Amino acid sequence: MPVKIVHDNYGKSRVRLMKVERHGDHHELQNINVKIALEGDFDSIHIDGDNAQCLPTDTMKNTVYALAAQTDKIEEIECFGLRLARHFLANNPQVSRVSINIIEHKYTRIPVGGEPHEHSFTKSGGEKRTTSVLATREGESVESGLEDLTVIKTTKSGFAGFMKDKYTFLPEVDDRIFCTSVKANWRYSNCESATEELWNSVRQTILETFATHDSLSVQHTLYAMGEAVLSKHADVSEIAFSLPNIHCLPVDVTRFGEEEKHAIFLPTEEPHGLIEARLSR
Amino acid sequence: MPVKIVHDNYGKSRVRLMKVERHGDHHELQNINVKIALEGDFDSIHIDGDNAQCLPTDTMKNTVYALAAQTDKIEEIECFGLRLARHFLANNPQVSRVSINIIEHKYTRIPVGGEPHEHSFTKSGGEKRTTSVLATREGESVESGLEDLTVIKTTKSGFAGFMKDKYTFLPEVDDRIFCTSVKANWRYSNCESATEELWNSVRQTILETFATHDSLSVQHTLYAMGEAVLSKHADVSEIAFSLPNIHCLPVDVTRFGEEEKHAIFLPTEEPHGLIEARLSR
Amino acid sequence: MPVKIVHDNYGKSRVRLMKVERHGDHHELQNINVKIALEGDFDSIHIDGDNAQCLPTDTMKNTVYALAAQTDKIEEIECFGLRLARHFLANNPQVSRVSINIIEHKYTRIPVGGEPHEHSFTKSGGEKRTTSVLATREGESVESGLEDLTVIKTTKSGFAGFMKDKYTFLPEVDDRIFCTSVKANWRYSNCESATEELWNSVRQTILETFATHDSLSVQHTLYAMGEAVLSKHADVSEIAFSLPNIHCLPVDVTRFGEEEKHAIFLPTEEPHGLIEARLSR
Amino acid sequence: MPVKIVHDNYGKSRVRLMKVERHGDHHELQNINVKIALEGDFDSIHIDGDNAQCLPTDTMKNTVYALAAQTDKIEEIECFGLRLARHFLANNPQVSRVSINIIEHKYTRIPVGGEPHEHSFTKSGGEKRTTSVLATREGESVESGLEDLTVIKTTKSGFAGFMKDKYTFLPEVDDRIFCTSVKANWRYSNCESATEELWNSVRQTILETFATHDSLSVQHTLYAMGEAVLSKHADVSEIAFSLPNIHCLPVDVTRFGEEEKHAIFLPTEEPHGLIEARLSR
Repeated sequence: MPVKIVHDNYGKSRVRLMKVERHGDHHELQNINVKIALEGDFDSIHIDGDNAQCLPTDTMKNTVYALAAQTDKIEEIECFGLRLARHFLANNPQVSRVSINIIEHKYTRIPVGGEPHEHSFTKSGGEKRTTSVLATREGESVESGLEDLTVIKTTKSGFAGFMKDKYTFLPEVDDRIFCTSVKANWRYSNCESATEELWNSVRQTILETFATHDSLSVQHTLYAMGEAVLSKHADVSEIAFSLPNIHCLPVDVTRFGEEEKHAIFLPTEEPHGLIEARLSR
Repeated sequence: MPVKIVHDNYGKSRVRLMKVERHGDHHELQNINVKIALEGDFDSIHIDGDNAQCLPTDTMKNTVYALAAQTDKIEEIECFGLRLARHFLANNPQVSRVSINIIEHKYTRIPVGGEPHEHSFTKSGGEKRTTSVLATREGESVESGLEDLTVIKTTKSGFAGFMKDKYTFLPEVDDRIFCTSVKANWRYSNCESATEELWNSVRQTILETFATHDSLSVQHTLYAMGEAVLSKHADVSEIAFSLPNIHCLPVDVTRFGEEEKHAIFLPTEEPHGLIEARLSR
Repeated sequence: MPVKIVHDNYGKSRVRLMKVERHGDHHELQNINVKIALEGDFDSIHIDGDNAQCLPTDTMKNTVYALAAQTDKIEEIECFGLRLARHFLANNPQVSRVSINIIEHKYTRIPVGGEPHEHSFTKSGGEKRTTSVLATREGESVESGLEDLTVIKTTKSGFAGFMKDKYTFLPEVDDRIFCTSVKANWRYSNCESATEELWNSVRQTILETFATHDSLSVQHTLYAMGEAVLSKHADVSEIAFSLPNIHCLPVDVTRFGEEEKHAIFLPTEEPHGLIEARLSR
Repeated sequence: MPVKIVHDNYGKSRVRLMKVERHGDHHELQNINVKIALEGDFDSIHIDGDNAQCLPTDTMKNTVYALAAQTDKIEEIECFGLRLARHFLANNPQVSRVSINIIEHKYTRIPVGGEPHEHSFTKSGGEKRTTSVLATREGESVESGLEDLTVIKTTKSGFAGFMKDKYTFLPEVDDRIFCTSVKANWRYSNCESATEELWNSVRQTILETFATHDSLSVQHTLYAMGEAVLSKHADVSEIAFSLPNIHCLPVDVTRFGEEEKHAIFLPTEEPHGLIEARLSR
């Protein structure tokens, strides 16, 4: 029977790399996780078992280490992703599209006697810096992002005036806890704009807007955060958010004979709301 | 600054439901996890904080339980997904597109004295049955699938004749271990075809092809599995696979003074190859 | 300041090993995860940074592969654990106590044309066979066990007549769903008794008792399972269980206008009850 | 057959609680996870299915919320754990021993315009503050601890002069990367000493010692950290560490034609060394 391949890709996931940049008086550290996927003319691999056009995924892994070793300095992940993507396109005529995803774990220097230590670090929690690079023979695109930035505000958040049907029992509230774990990705008008400085500024804009917004819904705050990022950063052309609503349910303590003081909550991730949007100029 | 919403959706994730169908002499059991996402005219929610067009995600969760309670019998997940999707479209003029994803955990009756027990079950491992339903006012589509079906073959798998560049050190082998965790999704020419019987037949076809194929690469076996499913099942119009290559690295036991017998391996998921393709007629 | 070491141990965790036993007409497969911990005279390592008495954990890992390679046949994990423990004691005078923990993932042959395939397997879910071996220069002990055996019964389970205080609101019920994930470990009067046959018999006794018991509490069924195992297996001298009560909460569907039929439940692991006991003759 | 209960306990796990302390100009936040286990005279529950001496685990969960609601202020977790333990002992004559384990997730105020925000927070990563309280009718003990404090140093760590046997191939190194995820628990001479201030001081002592120690092995640094904590804190009588050695393997980049600069590493948790010790005065 004639079966066609509608789409295919292959590559290597979870390639871990730690790079150290050694100066006389201090060290720099980068800990990343790389995912590579290639698209191209791979029909004969699938159909005939002919691997002549198949660059092994083990080679892709080695390429990560080799290209990382070519520079002494630690590069921003967007820049490293682009170098990887260009390498695979340049050396593989059978490849038409390269996708590189990198997750970077953030570190902070350990304070010793009030000063940041020169070669010792703590991992700054679960929060990650991410990039997604796509490259074809026609062009390139770069997105930067962050993941697992858990934030919470204990007031200035409500949810009321919503639609009701026969299955609606949710009470309207004008003061609830708002907890989410921010995932955001943004696109640049110009790839060169992807720097740590800009990343920090986008992150700080998201945090400040979350902190100070009078939230009428998760959507409302999502939009405010996106609008603030786009307003302040001319180089960012688009931003997408994925925000779980990590519900903090009020516990009715009056049944235990205690006075209700809006103080005791049960946080839960199962189930959770999930609010997603992509904003542009 | 004018900011536009390019795309948005919202809904409820991780809604868990266990349903029991009670007969005099035996019980049936279903354990599922539902994810709901709605698209539609939600601009005023984001921009103005006006929730008049916002059906709460708590209501979506309640709807799962209410609709499940409307039938005595346990439904196939594709059928339940369609009922949910149609409910949200029919009752929410502001909604243009509904996406329902359901994961079902499989159970087996406990054998007692050689007979399957009437109301006691074991969970059949990590393997899941899945469905993905999309519905708009123009039409519906249904995909069925499976996830986390871990399979392994200890011979009849090789990888040779591949491309080599300066970063290629992988040895060519004609007999390796092939381990993967199958994720597959297939589309029907006709939604009504989505039955457990067909699901079992697709699963068995995947398993038999994996077991008996002389594999020249993961891609080669992926294609063979897809071709077999499409050949045997006229109602399946398309099938997509995502196959991690869970590498089982040969351990060089000669350095420990032992004879090499092709018996000792180190399985690892970090890093892993990832091979994906979508096949159609 | 004089600081003493009250207790210490070190070793290697998560050593993965897959072993294949190749016969002309079929293969056998074993996939295990080994943890090694040594105790002994290690004060100088800690206090003086003198590693003369420190066998590297990398060597412990190599020892797992080396000893596995010494036999053609796949050994029961208890037997392999004992060989490892004895090796470390025999070759390391500085070591006084060796602890070996092994987790084995179970596999089933893929049925092809109704017959189990000779070299292709599926992983039988999350359930694991385990062993814990302790060896000193004075003696040895061996425990076998199982983990992640998820079971559920949809009737013949109640919970009533319990203590009540001012924080008790749980309704008494005579028919609830009972779901747990069995973790059990048992000790042998004689280490030689640790065979797969006995393991299968203990597992089947646990399953049958769970299925057929009229349960008045998790404790009640735990005791019944332990009593059944000890009654049927003279070689088992002691058995310990750890049973989470994976609550399946009845959903009140009457508020959605549906008739209550004891059919719709919400399973949850957060929070969960946890019931543990060790039984002996 | 006479079967005896050697040991048993039961309780509730994963009870989540978020507490907010609301002042006019700022809020305080606490997010904890509580585990309760009771021991006592529970034989009739197991053997006879008589629940008269069985306080439901649902009641234990409610007790967490009720006791938390009794104070306006947020308490240190050690103090809350003691209150819970004493409550269960005082109200349950059938109970002889109560064990309370609490995990606290740490939060940091979001900086807005350089100032910490009054009611908005970020989660400070995966690091946790923990406590373990044991209470019987004879006495009480309290331990405090921390978990998942990931630290790394890029120099001043070596491992050489170790024992060698025929399975030893690890090269001796005088400059390696040292990465671990600190788990520590310490005991007080006096329960009243368990304050956040002391916790912070113990944590900082662990971090500073890790940063500045010239490490000859994980054990060597473990001991130095314990010694420093015990030296500086008269109220701490004992401290235990569990330190995984998260290996960062040097990648041989010379095979890729690059110069070796001691810069490129592969971090891995599988397998890992595990070093544990308990130190006292």
